[in-house]
Amino acid sequence: MRSDRDGDILLEVSDSVRETLLADMDSAEIVAAAQNLDADEIADLAPDLPDEVVQDIIESQDVEERAQLQSALSYPEGSVGALMDFEVISIRDDVSCEVALRYLRRFDELPGHTDALFVVDRDDHLRGILPLKRLLVSDPDVEVATLIDREVVSFLPDADAEEAAQAFERYDLVSAPVVSTDGRVIARVTIDSVLDFVRDRQEAQQLAQAGLREEEDIFSSVFQSAKNRGPWLALNLCTAFVASRVVGAFEGSIEKLAALAALMPIVAGIGGNAGNQTSTLLVRSLALDQVSASNARRLFVKELGISVVNGALWGSVLGIVAWLLYSNVALGGVMALAMMLNLTVAAMAGLFIPLAMERFGRDPAIGSSVFLTFVTDSMGFFIFLGLATVFLL
Amino acid sequence: MRSDRDGDILLEVSDSVRETLLADMDSAEIVAAAQNLDADEIADLAPDLPDEVVQDIIESQDVEERAQLQSALSYPEGSVGALMDFEVISIRDDVSCEVALRYLRRFDELPGHTDALFVVDRDDHLRGILPLKRLLVSDPDVEVATLIDREVVSFLPDADAEEAAQAFERYDLVSAPVVSTDGRVIARVTIDSVLDFVRDRQEAQQLAQAGLREEEDIFSSVFQSAKNRGPWLALNLCTAFVASRVVGAFEGSIEKLAALAALMPIVAGIGGNAGNQTSTLLVRSLALDQVSASNARRLFVKELGISVVNGALWGSVLGIVAWLLYSNVALGGVMALAMMLNLTVAAMAGLFIPLAMERFGRDPAIGSSVFLTFVTDSMGFFIFLGLATVFLL
Repeated sequence: MRSDRDGDILLEVSDSVRETLLADMDSAEIVAAAQNLDADEIADLAPDLPDEVVQDIIESQDVEERAQLQSALSYPEGSVGALMDFEVISIRDDVSCEVALRYLRRFDELPGHTDALFVVDRDDHLRGILPLKRLLVSDPDVEVATLIDREVVSFLPDADAEEAAQAFERYDLVSAPVVSTDGRVIARVTIDSVLDFVRDRQEAQQLAQAGLREEEDIFSSVFQSAKNRGPWLALNLCTAFVASRVVGAFEGSIEKLAALAALMPIVAGIGGNAGNQTSTLLVRSLALDQVSASNARRLFVKELGISVVNGALWGSVLGIVAWLLYSNVALGGVMALAMMLNLTVAAMAGLFIPLAMERFGRDPAIGSSVFLTFVTDSMGFFIFLGLATVFLL
Repeated sequence: MRSDRDGDILLEVSDSVRETLLADMDSAEIVAAAQNLDADEIADLAPDLPDEVVQDIIESQDVEERAQLQSALSYPEGSVGALMDFEVISIRDDVSCEVALRYLRRFDELPGHTDALFVVDRDDHLRGILPLKRLLVSDPDVEVATLIDREVVSFLPDADAEEAAQAFERYDLVSAPVVSTDGRVIARVTIDSVLDFVRDRQEAQQLAQAGLREEEDIFSSVFQSAKNRGPWLALNLCTAFVASRVVGAFEGSIEKLAALAALMPIVAGIGGNAGNQTSTLLVRSLALDQVSASNARRLFVKELGISVVNGALWGSVLGIVAWLLYSNVALGGVMALAMMLNLTVAAMAGLFIPLAMERFGRDPAIGSSVFLTFVTDSMGFFIFLGLATVFLL
């Protein structure tokens, strides 16, 4: 593979393929491949490279590129700085459209996703943007300052990338300037990196919900995969073990009435399903900023109401089934009551767990379900076996 | 609220808020609001409107708008036709850049997301595209035909919107032409509708996985929510009931050894977690078109390998715990063996269920987990209680 295509190939392949390719390249080849990449692209690769190779790459760059690369490397994943690139075209606000057009003709071709020129004053402070589609339809003699949009969506490099993505969606942006704290244009964000970010984040979330890491795909080795998936299984085994001890505490009751062992998974299961519905809805609302102190109370009352309606309905159905199955009306009553109570527990846990995770600065979309299942299983077993012990034995 | 803003408001609010707003408007108000919307925007609203109001809106449009609206209404959600709009700017390939620029100056402003002009022959057949950023830097005397990109990504209106979204990502597009089967330009797709589509789909999938409908949000009523969530709970109750009957078949064994009731949820639970990991990974690979007949066999062997590694590890750990807890080495052995077997079942189910859903034309991301949990619960109970009955009693 020729080194001028190596860089692009490394950028496009999946994480596990990239690891394999990099393992086959020596430092010099990697540095050579990096020569054909922009600073923001090198920064995307950097986490997968040994530190000394990154250092070699930095030293191989010219002064301007080096400054951009160091800037791009300094921002963590999930920040605007990690999405931005440096292909900015800016013009001064005191020139005519004719001059702006003549300036543009000096480029062979404008950078991809240039839908607007960033308009700056003599100190590079952002004054506004001039959409190309407006420049194209304007009289060449008009001054740029009279055409620009001054209400510009711009970002600081350490802003949250998710908020930038939401701004791109809300305002239908194609590109937006990134400015320093004193308002100078330093880079830009374009819709293609935003779309990649939205997709990657979505994928990472879906994988993380099942305890998988982004790096694993169907091409990873058995050993690597087993290692990746182990911690999640271990965590779930711990919670299952605690729930098992709840059942263990009622072994005396189960010996007397083995039907309890057959029915208890139903009570625990419905709690898990209903709680998951509540928490999924809440996680979405949190992501959309729909949850405030004023409607949290209303939400609480609403989810409680739903659990009562569903609990009465499905509790009665399963209660009657249990009664008929075991010809034991008291068992049916305990079943119905336990399902109602566990659905209420599930609704509360489905609200409380994501809110608590958000409060402690963690992503409520990831990991909520482990805690939720833990609560609904343990409490489901406890409520059902406890009621049975009190009323049936 | 003034009618010229009504339309935009209806487009921007959430589904359940829109329902409330529409319920307060009479037909004439809705028709008036629609006057300020483009055909593609009206088509987005149409599913929420009564049929006769849609008919009134169609009749209120002029001939060209009416044709566009009927075209937009005829494509189902999830197709390119549902994403496209009609703000196409096309030019002939036999004119000079000077003529093209003069044509553009006749617009007050070009439509949003116009990053390229669609270049057509005299019969409106697509010949290529001319990026604005190239037009801007070109000599005005050059003929358009010499500047255009002839390798153009274009879509048929009934193509899959997800495939269009992947093309937008892969080729970093901002806009792309939609053509009829005979190659005429009829509309365009822009990155903003693609981004909305990706987000909406992601949200709909996350909600559907928990048995929620897109229409429900935290502002829906208790009754509406309970009704939405009921069918999912009922489906899960049915599968839980079947699993419960598996346990019921072993009630005699549980009466003799109540420890089985305490340990069985662990065996079922680890199967559910591991199977979910396998199916999540496979669903992602299916979405990325990474799964082919040739690597399906390798994937099968790999997942089987992981289940053996994890089964030996965690089966031993939990087997020893069960042995120590109940001072019963045979019980520990049964526990370990059951966990290994159920992890193998889980790996197979985690591969088979999404593949079967894909084969039958259903979205494997949605609903796989219900079937998977059903298999891992029922088989987990059956394997563990069956082995215990054979070897311990």
